[in-house]
Amino acid sequence: MNKGENGEISPDFVAQLAGFLGFDEGRVQHLFEKNYLARNWEKHDYLFRFDKEVSRIERGTVLYEKGDTFEVIMGFPKIRRAMVLDPTIKKHFSRLEKVAVEEKMNGYNVRVANVKGNILAITRSGYVCPYTTERANVKLNLKFFDDFPELVLYGEMVGPDNPYVPKEIYGIESVEFYIFDIREKNTGKPLPTSKRREMMEKYGFLQVRAFGEIPLETAPEEIADIIRELGKTEHEGVVIKDPDMVLPPLKYTSSQSNCSDLRHAFRFYNEAGRDYMLSRIVREGFQTVEWDEDETDFEKRCIQLGESILNPLRDSIRIVKNGQRLYEEVRIRVKDPKTATEFENYLKRLGVDAIFETPQPIGNEYMINIKKVNKSTNDKTQAIWEGELW
Amino acid sequence: MNKGENGEISPDFVAQLAGFLGFDEGRVQHLFEKNYLARNWEKHDYLFRFDKEVSRIERGTVLYEKGDTFEVIMGFPKIRRAMVLDPTIKKHFSRLEKVAVEEKMNGYNVRVANVKGNILAITRSGYVCPYTTERANVKLNLKFFDDFPELVLYGEMVGPDNPYVPKEIYGIESVEFYIFDIREKNTGKPLPTSKRREMMEKYGFLQVRAFGEIPLETAPEEIADIIRELGKTEHEGVVIKDPDMVLPPLKYTSSQSNCSDLRHAFRFYNEAGRDYMLSRIVREGFQTVEWDEDETDFEKRCIQLGESILNPLRDSIRIVKNGQRLYEEVRIRVKDPKTATEFENYLKRLGVDAIFETPQPIGNEYMINIKKVNKSTNDKTQAIWEGELW
Repeated sequence: MNKGENGEISPDFVAQLAGFLGFDEGRVQHLFEKNYLARNWEKHDYLFRFDKEVSRIERGTVLYEKGDTFEVIMGFPKIRRAMVLDPTIKKHFSRLEKVAVEEKMNGYNVRVANVKGNILAITRSGYVCPYTTERANVKLNLKFFDDFPELVLYGEMVGPDNPYVPKEIYGIESVEFYIFDIREKNTGKPLPTSKRREMMEKYGFLQVRAFGEIPLETAPEEIADIIRELGKTEHEGVVIKDPDMVLPPLKYTSSQSNCSDLRHAFRFYNEAGRDYMLSRIVREGFQTVEWDEDETDFEKRCIQLGESILNPLRDSIRIVKNGQRLYEEVRIRVKDPKTATEFENYLKRLGVDAIFETPQPIGNEYMINIKKVNKSTNDKTQAIWEGELW
Repeated sequence: MNKGENGEISPDFVAQLAGFLGFDEGRVQHLFEKNYLARNWEKHDYLFRFDKEVSRIERGTVLYEKGDTFEVIMGFPKIRRAMVLDPTIKKHFSRLEKVAVEEKMNGYNVRVANVKGNILAITRSGYVCPYTTERANVKLNLKFFDDFPELVLYGEMVGPDNPYVPKEIYGIESVEFYIFDIREKNTGKPLPTSKRREMMEKYGFLQVRAFGEIPLETAPEEIADIIRELGKTEHEGVVIKDPDMVLPPLKYTSSQSNCSDLRHAFRFYNEAGRDYMLSRIVREGFQTVEWDEDETDFEKRCIQLGESILNPLRDSIRIVKNGQRLYEEVRIRVKDPKTATEFENYLKRLGVDAIFETPQPIGNEYMINIKKVNKSTNDKTQAIWEGELW
């Protein structure tokens, strides 16, 4: 197998992979040419990721040679959203008596697995993040991966030292991994929720909070109460699961989470997706109608929505007017300073414009502040202040 | 010249048109094939419209054979927007001492011209609207078009009997045409603002309100005052012009107009453009910062924004929940009932789903209520209430 770019992949490798996937060779060749199947780089160049959904193989799925065959780590299945709780939950889970309700945490999705003897943290898109990988190796009980090399942990990296989605709301000092799924390699088959909880407890892993199994009949009402409680502390929402993990799960989020997303989106209004913004706004409309809110609560929702949009927008516009640059301040905490350097190169490779400050010792680790520059919003705003037309 | 679809256009016609436009024949052929140059239908099938901007010929430009050559009615030049008044106006008009400031009315853009002896109302996209055409023939002093067959009036159809953008705010009983530009056929060359005003007054045409010529130096401040005044009565904003109409004009709008647009967009949240919504929100951010508003005014802006979004969204979601269909109620007033039938067919042809009620006599005319069905928002909202996932 050739090293380097996709272009150098040998015909033998293509043939072998085609056989494994059950695709014809021309199709695999085409996937490589289009970079829909793309090689990771440097020390992880043996690892290929699907950069696009292909024949029900999720985007972000990775694969690599193992012995004389391949091993596959399936991507994160997209969890669909209930816009209203009733009748959506009853309809979607109609053949169940109970649903398992778990907290949906606001962090960074990561798969952790034993890949040819190394414990790697693989992002939603199928990259190996060097920072997340170091943290996983520091934080997790690695014995699990020796005992179950065929299993993959699906979890959320959460906390203030998360350079992707830093959050203080969980009372975590640095970062922790909260597991929400265990799936088999190759098939992607998930473990039932109770089996997963039992196994993770045994190894001392953190898991997303469970609200128990709730009868389908009362689920919409009970989940509405849970959501209102979670919202009070800015927590994101819930994932509603078939306890046997046969039916696909659903998600539902709090108003506070929608508004928090909007605050972030409007701070960087020129890079945030239009659909991202709109969907969060529309959720507010459905929630207020489904929950039959009175005029006082509705007025509060309007104010909160207006402020969530206009406050960050005003801040950004003012900052640029005052001649400063817009950036997002995040931080990481590493054991080995080399991890920070690797992470810096990794972000550069992904096209993220980030400025790394000097590492500061903290205990036996190092804290590094990072400024992620939001070039598009910055440049657009500056141009407008200089008289450019929309 | 063949009748019917674009496909039947004769090679002779293509050659003749290519000569006139200064394009090669293959290019004209290609424009027809792609429908970038498209034939209007039925009694106006002699009229071609540009459905796409081509070599600086604006989208919506129309042309037709006249004698042994062609006559062209240029499209509406897109007026660019100042996101902030200062320095944008000073920079854009830097070589002028004064700018002409006129009201930007909220109506429907239409060109009225003498086309082979008939007075036609041509929409922004280059269609001949039968309703607007009848109204133009009823409302306007037609002598002008005999006296100046080489000139085209660019105006706004405004008022409650406007089936596109019905507005009560101008105190108009039915509809009126407010002229804001006069341009020559073929060249598209505009008349200076004073010349246009003089000519239109002589013939008794209505014109958009003029706020006079304002020194460039004080224009941003003075225009801000005008905008605040216009906003109080929900009026849209201003167009800032070079009095000689050499430099292209700029526009700037009131917060109330942004919010009014948002109210409409969120009522039909699934058909409104995402960029349309976002741009109106972002304008609010720049305006509050440029005008250096205090916290009280800022809070008002937040509430107004939140309500402009969430109120119509809640209404639509509730209406569908209650089993009713979402539609927009508009009305027209015609002299000849045949015009209503023609207009109904015209909307159908454009893919607009509209229900026309029975004409009601009013004076020597007929009023017809029309329900424009917003199928996309309706269907999406209904599906969500039935448990469909986002």
